[in-house]
Amino acid sequence: MIVVMSVGATEQEANDVRDLVKSAGLTPHDNYGTQRVVIAVLGDVGPQRDHLMSKLNLMPGVDSVTPISRPYKLASRESHPEDTVIELAGTKVGDGSLTIMAGPCSIEGREMMMETARAVVAAGATILRGGAFKPRTSPYAFQGLGIEGLLYLAEAGKETGLPTITEVMEPSQVEVVAKHSDILQVGTRNMQNYSLLTAVGKAGKPVMLKRGYGATIEEWLMAAEYIVSSGQPNVILCERGIRTFETYTRNTLDLTAVPLLHHLTHLPVVVDPSHATGKRWLVKPMALAAVAAGADGVMVEVHPKPDEAMSDGEQSLTFGQFEDMASAVKKIHQEVRTLTKDPFAMTGSVRAGGTSKH
Amino acid sequence: MIVVMSVGATEQEANDVRDLVKSAGLTPHDNYGTQRVVIAVLGDVGPQRDHLMSKLNLMPGVDSVTPISRPYKLASRESHPEDTVIELAGTKVGDGSLTIMAGPCSIEGREMMMETARAVVAAGATILRGGAFKPRTSPYAFQGLGIEGLLYLAEAGKETGLPTITEVMEPSQVEVVAKHSDILQVGTRNMQNYSLLTAVGKAGKPVMLKRGYGATIEEWLMAAEYIVSSGQPNVILCERGIRTFETYTRNTLDLTAVPLLHHLTHLPVVVDPSHATGKRWLVKPMALAAVAAGADGVMVEVHPKPDEAMSDGEQSLTFGQFEDMASAVKKIHQEVRTLTKDPFAMTGSVRAGGTSKH
Amino acid sequence: MIVVMSVGATEQEANDVRDLVKSAGLTPHDNYGTQRVVIAVLGDVGPQRDHLMSKLNLMPGVDSVTPISRPYKLASRESHPEDTVIELAGTKVGDGSLTIMAGPCSIEGREMMMETARAVVAAGATILRGGAFKPRTSPYAFQGLGIEGLLYLAEAGKETGLPTITEVMEPSQVEVVAKHSDILQVGTRNMQNYSLLTAVGKAGKPVMLKRGYGATIEEWLMAAEYIVSSGQPNVILCERGIRTFETYTRNTLDLTAVPLLHHLTHLPVVVDPSHATGKRWLVKPMALAAVAAGADGVMVEVHPKPDEAMSDGEQSLTFGQFEDMASAVKKIHQEVRTLTKDPFAMTGSVRAGGTSKH
Amino acid sequence: MIVVMSVGATEQEANDVRDLVKSAGLTPHDNYGTQRVVIAVLGDVGPQRDHLMSKLNLMPGVDSVTPISRPYKLASRESHPEDTVIELAGTKVGDGSLTIMAGPCSIEGREMMMETARAVVAAGATILRGGAFKPRTSPYAFQGLGIEGLLYLAEAGKETGLPTITEVMEPSQVEVVAKHSDILQVGTRNMQNYSLLTAVGKAGKPVMLKRGYGATIEEWLMAAEYIVSSGQPNVILCERGIRTFETYTRNTLDLTAVPLLHHLTHLPVVVDPSHATGKRWLVKPMALAAVAAGADGVMVEVHPKPDEAMSDGEQSLTFGQFEDMASAVKKIHQEVRTLTKDPFAMTGSVRAGGTSKH
Repeated sequence: MIVVMSVGATEQEANDVRDLVKSAGLTPHDNYGTQRVVIAVLGDVGPQRDHLMSKLNLMPGVDSVTPISRPYKLASRESHPEDTVIELAGTKVGDGSLTIMAGPCSIEGREMMMETARAVVAAGATILRGGAFKPRTSPYAFQGLGIEGLLYLAEAGKETGLPTITEVMEPSQVEVVAKHSDILQVGTRNMQNYSLLTAVGKAGKPVMLKRGYGATIEEWLMAAEYIVSSGQPNVILCERGIRTFETYTRNTLDLTAVPLLHHLTHLPVVVDPSHATGKRWLVKPMALAAVAAGADGVMVEVHPKPDEAMSDGEQSLTFGQFEDMASAVKKIHQEVRTLTKDPFAMTGSVRAGGTSKH
Repeated sequence: MIVVMSVGATEQEANDVRDLVKSAGLTPHDNYGTQRVVIAVLGDVGPQRDHLMSKLNLMPGVDSVTPISRPYKLASRESHPEDTVIELAGTKVGDGSLTIMAGPCSIEGREMMMETARAVVAAGATILRGGAFKPRTSPYAFQGLGIEGLLYLAEAGKETGLPTITEVMEPSQVEVVAKHSDILQVGTRNMQNYSLLTAVGKAGKPVMLKRGYGATIEEWLMAAEYIVSSGQPNVILCERGIRTFETYTRNTLDLTAVPLLHHLTHLPVVVDPSHATGKRWLVKPMALAAVAAGADGVMVEVHPKPDEAMSDGEQSLTFGQFEDMASAVKKIHQEVRTLTKDPFAMTGSVRAGGTSKH
Repeated sequence: MIVVMSVGATEQEANDVRDLVKSAGLTPHDNYGTQRVVIAVLGDVGPQRDHLMSKLNLMPGVDSVTPISRPYKLASRESHPEDTVIELAGTKVGDGSLTIMAGPCSIEGREMMMETARAVVAAGATILRGGAFKPRTSPYAFQGLGIEGLLYLAEAGKETGLPTITEVMEPSQVEVVAKHSDILQVGTRNMQNYSLLTAVGKAGKPVMLKRGYGATIEEWLMAAEYIVSSGQPNVILCERGIRTFETYTRNTLDLTAVPLLHHLTHLPVVVDPSHATGKRWLVKPMALAAVAAGADGVMVEVHPKPDEAMSDGEQSLTFGQFEDMASAVKKIHQEVRTLTKDPFAMTGSVRAGGTSKH
Repeated sequence: MIVVMSVGATEQEANDVRDLVKSAGLTPHDNYGTQRVVIAVLGDVGPQRDHLMSKLNLMPGVDSVTPISRPYKLASRESHPEDTVIELAGTKVGDGSLTIMAGPCSIEGREMMMETARAVVAAGATILRGGAFKPRTSPYAFQGLGIEGLLYLAEAGKETGLPTITEVMEPSQVEVVAKHSDILQVGTRNMQNYSLLTAVGKAGKPVMLKRGYGATIEEWLMAAEYIVSSGQPNVILCERGIRTFETYTRNTLDLTAVPLLHHLTHLPVVVDPSHATGKRWLVKPMALAAVAAGADGVMVEVHPKPDEAMSDGEQSLTFGQFEDMASAVKKIHQEVRTLTKDPFAMTGSVRAGGTSKH
């Protein structure tokens, strides 16, 4: 941590800063510039990081305090250079293969779930999704089938041989969702629901953490840190668009986050082009772009009859559209992989967490 | 709702739209322009609103679908023209008086809670705040005293005669928090935690709903709608800053939301200048501005020794600073109230929910 | 345009609206709902659009006014269904081929310009870029070589056979820049510098218009409309990132804008991954993603020795890195083109401007 | 400037950084932490600041580079602790008095200009505004009367005794505008039009610089630096709203910028509530809030008949509304001034540029 003193700060003020640093078990180290002194804080600051920064910021004569170390540890590539590879029954996430998660936004019944599962596995999906508990902006909208939906999803997963993923909305649902689903999904609106993060971290199942639509990449990684520090190392990050001033699309898909995350963390990264764009015809081009940017996979919504979907029909693909998209995404993924052995050779050993310059 | 057909849409496509509208029990009404037809959907669309919009958006030949009615009902001034006034022991919120909520960010112990309570009531606070369950960005930061903190807060409220407010983070905490606190607070990160919104709505106590830092005003009112439709009519809205590209402040305080909300809803509006700015010396000017913009009150953090606070010390006021701020805010509030009988006469009967032009 | 009256608006207020519409030479058409009346404005509103909307918005009893027609005409695909293809000496932009614009951020001297030009043409660049007049955030930074730079760029273009592009910053520079360069570039900070837009529109050369970092897609197309309506139909749109709350990257590259623009406008779209990310190692993955999303091309910065560049060295590629990127981008472009004859078949005839549903 | 080396950077990489720092005439100073070395750059970096940061960022083993000094000098309070007070004929800006700039958005004719001028001076305006050259989003909208409008404004200023302000859109207009107006205004869309900033800086008249709707406070101050470094020390900053995801208002008025700017710069700050909100009935509450937050003044649009205004009628006040607003703003200003001798005593000597803690 670096403490920049104000121009004109007194020596007494600088001394008070040094004393506080020492009382925290750390070492102050002076850097005298032409206008002011900058005091570096040496040593391992540990969990008192935020608290100490806050205290220093309040001291007379302090202009600013800048952190050096990243606030997330377990989720960082610095502390864990190897890619995390998540092994599921029949597929892996994060090993360089292409993950395709597909299924209906909401599970509307047994038949539609089975029919959709068969269609997406035939077209190349590797993980089956389906919503049983639905977070809806309006209290008057369809809220999902609940546990009944979970059972249909599990049955469809068993028949097709695909691992399943579904959203969990509150701590009290974690147990039942973990019983019936292979991956627990935390939605964008709950990315900083810390009670939920802690609960899913203890459930013994891999977790997919969607980015909060208003969250920075650092906050997202801090949310992942909650899960990992609660006991679950297998976390998939899912970029799904952030909120900006642009209104033509529901959110702005931040694809640059994909290579950035591969640099900052060892966790796999998938992209959801359905929710970000909110428009069916934008799903395919943005899925291709996601894979070209290096994503480990995509998640899309598929429905037998999108025009009759009980939620998010506008962004759901028909079976034919999904087949077309999956085929195209696989080709681009293959091409990106073969362009070089390391598709991002320009970044040097970034993905391997080395220090050679990116 | 208004369905705009594309330039060049066929008559068959328009007919399909009309048929879908009729099948929903509503009436399509044509408006033929020079380039295209626009089909108005007449009748009371009710809870099928979002679903119908989604379906129409998917139909061939449809360019766009625009809603006419607002998605929130119970929270809207249109359906409830009179201001909601919340009666608490010894004070009211939303009746034109000035609400001042004050207390420590985190309750750190019995003594500091009592000491702070005595100081803020002496300086004019009308509601006592204190954090027992703390949502922290880092899993390694102090997470609050929990139930022990609730007991200290309740004791401090009893001694000072102030009603109390504290945050609740998950449905399973609602019962115990409602037992010990007069108002339940839902934090910015949980604004769209629908399980929590429903739970607090059923708890029988007034709720203060902080704006999600990435949420629009419409989403915020939809979140309030969840609470009201679950049974709790007494909801206080708290503006606390939204996320923008500006980085000098933690968030950007959106004070224009204050008069806008008085126009859109009957619920009282308070402003939290502490969290939005993240800097102690910005609290007073922004509190004054909030009241000048018409806020029903402010919420600020106060600590006996901010330099030693376990959380958010940077934005906490000392007792002396709080006294100075409270005194100034009261004067500006008084001045704003006396400028005219209706301080916002320019807006005509806006606050009274009338239709005369603002 | 659709005028929604307030719940409770009087018949006299509705009549005043109808009278104003008629006095503008247009026809009011009533739609009576269960709660209120909605008045459609029929006829060709033309240039009085914004003014009429403003007036209607001010009338008593009016709740909101929603436009139906898009404010841009010449730039819209509705009025010009065929793709604009820009023919330059030796290359075309917007015809389905891949455009690669490359060259130094700033032209620093004759030798470095010639050396860079030879390197980029060898690696596959189709247009040569180079900055002579530089908009710099700091008045103390290098502001470019000016006319001397223009001459070097022109010479390099002549030797390599590549058409050239360079930025023009003010109306008085337009003549000299148009004399020496094949394409005039308007930078992000000048996207709404209307004097400049009008001047470049009259200069007789194609124009590349970068998106303002704070501009919506609609405002961007309105800026293009300024250029086209001033006489220049050949406008290239360049997405270069928008400003959001995310701070890891300089700006957030909005790649969804690419397929959206192909739907809304007939003008070609290229992407600049260098400025959006501000980091060299992010250029290649984001260039691949841009082309996968359907961009007509990319623009990147290349420097013989980025470490010694006088501006933007952090985001400039070395010759070797450019060669690697260009090769990869060409392969992805080829793959995307061959996936289907129309790479975005899912969007139906969107790109051809038809009305069949996307 | 602080150079943070990566965890695992080699000693050779650190040496290369030290060598580059020395070659720039500066002194590297090591700070060895538990995981990595942090190299402080000591000495006066001057104009090579950005260039050096860019070079260091590119070096192998470098994790990040953080600037210490602010990039603006002449505009900073650090280098100029005393408030800038701008003296105009009959009024001052920035001396603690209340500045009220008022007049029509567009000057539509001689009579309306004179009539408006008489009305606003009677109600307490201290500076007369009026638009002659109008930046309009649409090329088809009214673009202003040009020089004819300037003459009307000058005549109105002479008759009422008020100094005048009007917008200048391009360098070639600067001379004629400076001849006829007392203050030159640079609009939000031109905040980074560096050619224009330099031209107005040389014109010998005070300048009002509106904040770019997508600009950070730092970029805004850098734009002011362009003007001051071109020769004009009298710059007024005008906050007018920034672009965010909220769509109920046109922009989000950032009132926290007011006390922040008083801390960062010695230049006076006024607020324009008309353009930020885009709605007439929001002007008064936001003007009151601006003054309560410490603004040196407000700028509002006034029109004899807003319903017939050729531009921005929606946000223009009638004469009666302006009188009501001006009266209220004056009272709040008076109250804020008398609350304490220094209305922001909490901020200590911030406004005086001292180093005592805010």
